[in-house]
Amino acid sequence: MPRIAIATIENVTRRALMRHGAREWIAASVARAVARAEATGNVICGLYYLESYCLQLQSGRVRGDAEPVVSRPRPGAVRVDAGFGFAQPAFERGFDAALAAARECGTASLAVGHAHTCTSLGYFTEQIARAGMIGIGFTNASPIVAAPGGRKRVIGTNPIAFSVPDGRGGVAMQFDSSTSAVALGKITMARAAGERIPPGWAVDRAGRPTTDPEAALAGALVPAGGHKGWGFGLMAEILAAGMTGGLNSVDVQPLKAPEGPPHDLGQFYLLVDPALSPDFGDRFARLAAAIAEDGKARLPGARLGGQAEADVPETLWRAVLGMAGEN
Amino acid sequence: MPRIAIATIENVTRRALMRHGAREWIAASVARAVARAEATGNVICGLYYLESYCLQLQSGRVRGDAEPVVSRPRPGAVRVDAGFGFAQPAFERGFDAALAAARECGTASLAVGHAHTCTSLGYFTEQIARAGMIGIGFTNASPIVAAPGGRKRVIGTNPIAFSVPDGRGGVAMQFDSSTSAVALGKITMARAAGERIPPGWAVDRAGRPTTDPEAALAGALVPAGGHKGWGFGLMAEILAAGMTGGLNSVDVQPLKAPEGPPHDLGQFYLLVDPALSPDFGDRFARLAAAIAEDGKARLPGARLGGQAEADVPETLWRAVLGMAGEN
Repeated sequence: MPRIAIATIENVTRRALMRHGAREWIAASVARAVARAEATGNVICGLYYLESYCLQLQSGRVRGDAEPVVSRPRPGAVRVDAGFGFAQPAFERGFDAALAAARECGTASLAVGHAHTCTSLGYFTEQIARAGMIGIGFTNASPIVAAPGGRKRVIGTNPIAFSVPDGRGGVAMQFDSSTSAVALGKITMARAAGERIPPGWAVDRAGRPTTDPEAALAGALVPAGGHKGWGFGLMAEILAAGMTGGLNSVDVQPLKAPEGPPHDLGQFYLLVDPALSPDFGDRFARLAAAIAEDGKARLPGARLGGQAEADVPETLWRAVLGMAGEN
Repeated sequence: MPRIAIATIENVTRRALMRHGAREWIAASVARAVARAEATGNVICGLYYLESYCLQLQSGRVRGDAEPVVSRPRPGAVRVDAGFGFAQPAFERGFDAALAAARECGTASLAVGHAHTCTSLGYFTEQIARAGMIGIGFTNASPIVAAPGGRKRVIGTNPIAFSVPDGRGGVAMQFDSSTSAVALGKITMARAAGERIPPGWAVDRAGRPTTDPEAALAGALVPAGGHKGWGFGLMAEILAAGMTGGLNSVDVQPLKAPEGPPHDLGQFYLLVDPALSPDFGDRFARLAAAIAEDGKARLPGARLGGQAEADVPETLWRAVLGMAGEN
């Protein structure tokens, strides 16, 4: 597997997106997210998405020239209409207003609507934490998860992310997880590898538990922990769709299809200023120390630093260069 | 089992608390919560707690005369110092300010610190939803949950609750769940019934999975869904302890012990005004309709109405009457 510098990944990704119609600042914004995913080993949210971005730019499924429209209807609430463009530039345009709102009000929300998939939700809450605020993120997705005991796909894998600032411009802890038993990528990867999936991940079309990835992809994923994951998934759905005006997951078309209507997804973020609580740093330090005493336990997100290079499968890298017109 | 009117449960509970030293308005506030828990079949958070409340009022572990101190350090952030009194009167005193903050700012937080256990977190987010706001609640508890793969109790069952207003003064959906595989009450109930617990609920003192409730109570519960529940439990911990200045779960003494230091727990609530999004009602209705099409699926919290009477075990009811001096 070729080992590629992250800076190269970012540059080639930006050029590939521009070559397919994205404006430069938009391509740069998306390329930073792709590079960050590759730098942190989050391969599902990295270059793996680039082909669909390029094809969807060509077909118009995502708009490469969308100008996000930022509004602040109340002092603690910022809204961004992504205009059926990418999620990253929309977040970027609303971020300063959201930070200002959180500083002024102590608590604020940032609702990004009519956006493309954001892929890694933690990428955004990480930025919130690096700016000194606690960040909680919610998003929805294409429909793949059924209710406990059900069989109809009614919500997406609907992740929730949570990032905590360390008070020095870094991230003390980060958590980013689907509310389904597993992320969809694990099922598609099992199918690609010709492997079965463990029980408890999915049901078939009739709602029966299955270990066959094909049957799972024709059926539905189950929520993590049954009713618990169902509740958290609904919370993400209601905030991400309801509070942004984007589509409900049930009405979203497959995310990687080259053609079709825009994703029209929503991302909803809550920002909380830890400076509201003089004890915040002490309490976090005490928690971290207690966890460290248990040798096998850890705070999530400790590996956030990121590598300067990433291993990229050769066929994928060749395809990426092709998209940039550089092979 | 005697069937008791909820109004009677509320009155007797209020008198029992006053007889043990609580001021009338404080006793009334706690009694409403106990009655509501019994009315909705949430027996773990109802009369089952009353004996510990009374004994702790007597010992001074909870202060029956605490005057909650409300502050609003920024426009979207309300804080209540419960003064080592009950959680319910502290929430009550801060609630109007929190609603005003959410209306003005669009998003607001309510941090209740130095409080007794709140028992049912959904009781509070339900009030937020009935007032027209989306409510998200987080709290911590006494230490009972170990990290995935660990054995040391570092956090509590740390629930998260979420309530959605229906736009007519009621609740459209409510979700209230521990972030551990099960609530602690299920283990203590299994022990009381002399039953074993299913695998996947707990580990023993050495961190090995166990089906023995005694070994589980000497060991630790595991997070729901492994790393997912761990992440959500940490989120609740960091918000409930860090943002209120209450103790970390790891430093909290057993909640029902008659004597000891105050619980010093925290509850952290986020309020989001659905009026920020003109599409909120439509998106929620579409989600509810999609779920209803799958015969076996349901939105959580549909049974919130509550009964006018509750079945109370005879020995428990006699003890309650005894606490009120009425047997």
